[in-house]
Amino acid sequence: MAAITSHLAILSNQHPSHLQLKPTTVRMSMTQQTRNPRLHWASLQADIEAHLKSSITIKQPLEVFEPMHHLVFSAPETTVPALCLAACELVGGQRHQAISAASALLLMEAATYTHEHLPLTDRPKAKPEPAVKNHVFGPNVELLTGDGMVPFGFELLARSDGGENSEQILRVMVEISRVVGSTGVIDAQYRKTMDTRSDGEEVCHVEEIMRMVEKYEGELHSCAAVCGGVLGGGSEDEIERLRKIGFCFGMIQGMAKRGFNEGNEVNEARNLALQELKFFKDKELDAIKILLNI
Amino acid sequence: MAAITSHLAILSNQHPSHLQLKPTTVRMSMTQQTRNPRLHWASLQADIEAHLKSSITIKQPLEVFEPMHHLVFSAPETTVPALCLAACELVGGQRHQAISAASALLLMEAATYTHEHLPLTDRPKAKPEPAVKNHVFGPNVELLTGDGMVPFGFELLARSDGGENSEQILRVMVEISRVVGSTGVIDAQYRKTMDTRSDGEEVCHVEEIMRMVEKYEGELHSCAAVCGGVLGGGSEDEIERLRKIGFCFGMIQGMAKRGFNEGNEVNEARNLALQELKFFKDKELDAIKILLNI
Repeated sequence: MAAITSHLAILSNQHPSHLQLKPTTVRMSMTQQTRNPRLHWASLQADIEAHLKSSITIKQPLEVFEPMHHLVFSAPETTVPALCLAACELVGGQRHQAISAASALLLMEAATYTHEHLPLTDRPKAKPEPAVKNHVFGPNVELLTGDGMVPFGFELLARSDGGENSEQILRVMVEISRVVGSTGVIDAQYRKTMDTRSDGEEVCHVEEIMRMVEKYEGELHSCAAVCGGVLGGGSEDEIERLRKIGFCFGMIQGMAKRGFNEGNEVNEARNLALQELKFFKDKELDAIKILLNI
Repeated sequence: MAAITSHLAILSNQHPSHLQLKPTTVRMSMTQQTRNPRLHWASLQADIEAHLKSSITIKQPLEVFEPMHHLVFSAPETTVPALCLAACELVGGQRHQAISAASALLLMEAATYTHEHLPLTDRPKAKPEPAVKNHVFGPNVELLTGDGMVPFGFELLARSDGGENSEQILRVMVEISRVVGSTGVIDAQYRKTMDTRSDGEEVCHVEEIMRMVEKYEGELHSCAAVCGGVLGGGSEDEIERLRKIGFCFGMIQGMAKRGFNEGNEVNEARNLALQELKFFKDKELDAIKILLNI
């Protein structure tokens, strides 16, 4: 881990043009995989969606639950929640043990996405791009809905305790709180805000981008893997290895999202993850390997 | 409880002018109390502030923690967090057992206050009034800071577990999640948004105001009292009585804030709370009684 971290620091001395800028997504690479792992991954995603759909029913008050339903399910899909379930299975757990944590993570990401797209008076108007959804609701309603998603995520988690694993759930809550809070995702969002010019164009310093990727995709995936490991009953050693694997995978994802698909940093992160994965050699690796595009 | 609830519904048939409109605060009435209860109440508030000050130190990244420190401590003081500690003591607990829950409640309220005052593009400009603080930071930073406070509150709570009371902490988290989330405070905020005209003037239907008071001050105080009771080791019966006492007190507070200081509803809420308080007759009642202006 020290190697990739120091490598990320060194990146600041390199010119961005040294890095290839071909955005691709992991989804594309999944078609190259054998059939079962892909289906396995899809079933993880489907289980989380089904769990959330049964939790966020459209009920009274409609003005509250209708926007929440819409905004949760229209947020861009990420690999964070499914990684949580995959990690749970990797340590020998059943996916239902981690389904609430995975759903909570999805809610946190949807809340972040919603608030990132609020039209605030000091925020430059978003450039029209296909990835930015239309605003079906007014900014005020979207603000409040995002505000409602976060405690709802914690509620789902807290309620999932059957009286036997309270301590694991609290541990998972500390992990999630830290990663979505001021020292994690919100720190990354601050940096993005500070680096955005008044015309809405992001100023791209490679070092700064890497710090954002660390705080955003890196730590979110790391947290997801840890939560899955904890709830699946993994040992401390397994959990710490999952923390590294998740972080590396998040870095690969985050770099790819910003156009860094190849290069030393991506290879280093992939190799580091593979090395840690060897520890789990006798266990279910397919789903995790899909993430690493192996 | 049924009586006051049905009474609140009946209120809609009354004309607002039947109700006296003299705003006062409980703080004013506290000067009429004997010395010790007042000091006791002040010491509860001071303990919560000290706990939060030691938790939110101004550290790196400064751009994150400096606004959080400012926005938490500049939010208007409420009686919710101290009620949590008072309830804990009422059931025989030590206040340190509930200090994290009280701090989390303060953070949730500060986050709500911060987001309520964000200048959104669809939100009418706030009328200048002394209660509305100056915006020291930009809207984007205030949005993110509010977003950071909520998970930080849950983190404080989750970390407060010494391994002995995990189940109580999870129970408290469910209570807090529900009351600050979409079926509680956020529902009240929606109603307020919907009832605000384009010039920023609130449309005041008494029935609607009462529903907001129920969801906002009523349920927040109810939740605070329950959390204190749970963490102080209260019995189920004590906890349910605290739920009613807290709700009644919140209703009195919320009605007073909106100019309804006297009248049947206020008296009924006070009497209901006093009736429930009789159950605790051998215990420490001073702090709670201050709240009820007895």
